[in-house]
Amino acid sequence: MKIGFIGLGNLGTPIAENILEKGNPLFVYNRTAAKTKALTDKGATACANVKELTEACDVIITMVSDDKALKSISEGPDGLIQNMQPGSVHISMSTILPLTAEELSKQHTQKGSHYLSAPVFGRPEAARASKLNFVISGDAAHRQRFEQLLKDAGGAGVWEFGDDITAANTVKLCGNFMIAAAMEAIGESVSMAAKSNIDTQKMWSFFTQTIFNSPIYTNYGNIIVNKQFTPPAFNMQLGLKDVNLVLSQAQQVQQNMPLASLLQQHMQQLIEKKGPELDWSAVSLAADLK
Amino acid sequence: MKIGFIGLGNLGTPIAENILEKGNPLFVYNRTAAKTKALTDKGATACANVKELTEACDVIITMVSDDKALKSISEGPDGLIQNMQPGSVHISMSTILPLTAEELSKQHTQKGSHYLSAPVFGRPEAARASKLNFVISGDAAHRQRFEQLLKDAGGAGVWEFGDDITAANTVKLCGNFMIAAAMEAIGESVSMAAKSNIDTQKMWSFFTQTIFNSPIYTNYGNIIVNKQFTPPAFNMQLGLKDVNLVLSQAQQVQQNMPLASLLQQHMQQLIEKKGPELDWSAVSLAADLK
Repeated sequence: MKIGFIGLGNLGTPIAENILEKGNPLFVYNRTAAKTKALTDKGATACANVKELTEACDVIITMVSDDKALKSISEGPDGLIQNMQPGSVHISMSTILPLTAEELSKQHTQKGSHYLSAPVFGRPEAARASKLNFVISGDAAHRQRFEQLLKDAGGAGVWEFGDDITAANTVKLCGNFMIAAAMEAIGESVSMAAKSNIDTQKMWSFFTQTIFNSPIYTNYGNIIVNKQFTPPAFNMQLGLKDVNLVLSQAQQVQQNMPLASLLQQHMQQLIEKKGPELDWSAVSLAADLK
Repeated sequence: MKIGFIGLGNLGTPIAENILEKGNPLFVYNRTAAKTKALTDKGATACANVKELTEACDVIITMVSDDKALKSISEGPDGLIQNMQPGSVHISMSTILPLTAEELSKQHTQKGSHYLSAPVFGRPEAARASKLNFVISGDAAHRQRFEQLLKDAGGAGVWEFGDDITAANTVKLCGNFMIAAAMEAIGESVSMAAKSNIDTQKMWSFFTQTIFNSPIYTNYGNIIVNKQFTPPAFNMQLGLKDVNLVLSQAQQVQQNMPLASLLQQHMQQLIEKKGPELDWSAVSLAADLK
């Protein structure tokens, strides 16, 4: 199995490194070519463009920032869909709209290649520790075939959501929305507690040893209590992009999501006032903006 | 140590039963006298009024529904403050404003008795399983003296927040706010996922085994996915009361809490449209009201 990887960002890089370190032959392409160096230094082969990657590989993983970037590398005469070998598989790890997954999957099928939805939960440090969780959906045979590859990529868990290619994308959007909501709630609580003369470190230690003892509250809570919003592991612009996707999917299925709307408004305000480069956990500052 | 207990509601009853079952002599008083029967059947002594309780006991625990109820049993010629024996201690488990704790504590001190803040996290089933978490603040000697009693009462954990009598109350308000926020986020997610044809049971199983593997997301998430809002363990009226306290404390310290305001509005709308007797986790239905 020759594996291609497109999208060597904050999260893509450690995932690609994991795959390489497990002994898999790896070919990489990145729009900003300099970002391939960390991988080629460890034995990966850099390709000059998407087409060259499709010629070298029978499995191509993409991990890019948004729907537009994924479409731009997938569609068109130089894209994955037009050029991937018959029978080869596109494993898509990006956080995108369910509708985008559906459209790309159809186009792959028409050209004789395949598409598997495999969005991922976890920040770069979780990738480096192989503690990611992949949620996957699509053809059953492909889900089975690539489970080990996703474990090699750093997946502590690979969670199946059935044949519907869009399912994993919806689950990913629900998860990111709930993370953002938790960060807003943590932020408002910690600010109120601090102004009420509470030792917020001690308070946070209590909550994360008891009713909120989960990775989200522990990791993001500590970032928020300590206000460590730079450097960003996942910046506010990307956070806003995800909340926009959540609301777009909600509109698609006619679901009202007032808390998601509140988060969207807060992220927009924060980007306006503090720029796009804080970590998205800085949504916890929203209550203090006014 | 002769222990008195006032407030045999959904949570007060199993807490009082725990204390009794650990072999502590227990005296009980409840405004609705019929509610004392479960305890007297097991060996507790019922008192006809607060004054009679104060004559029999050197420690009195209160667990009532709100600040007003706590003030009404504490203040006035027939109340705890006027009648408790010198040196005796009032352990207050109710969820109340920090300011109320401060006022009551001062009045106790003036009369030669003491007040200890000991609000509690956990629903009735957690009380029955002795898996509660008490957060306590006040005089250090009293915190130390009553740690074992709070464990007898069902406390898997007793968490100290220092000498400031109000601290535990603020922590309790932060916790209840974050629980309500989580329920709103879970509700919006699950509704959106269901309309997107996701198996929400499977989705919830995934989240609670990974990034949200904490008691709040597991227990409330299951209630929300299964829409089991009756009978209430903690009803919407009490939930709204707590969110009102959160916003009152926020105003006191000049903290903006937009998510808490959203929850307040949703709980008010739900009570208006569906009555006050659903479990407060029904705040998850708020997004579907319109």
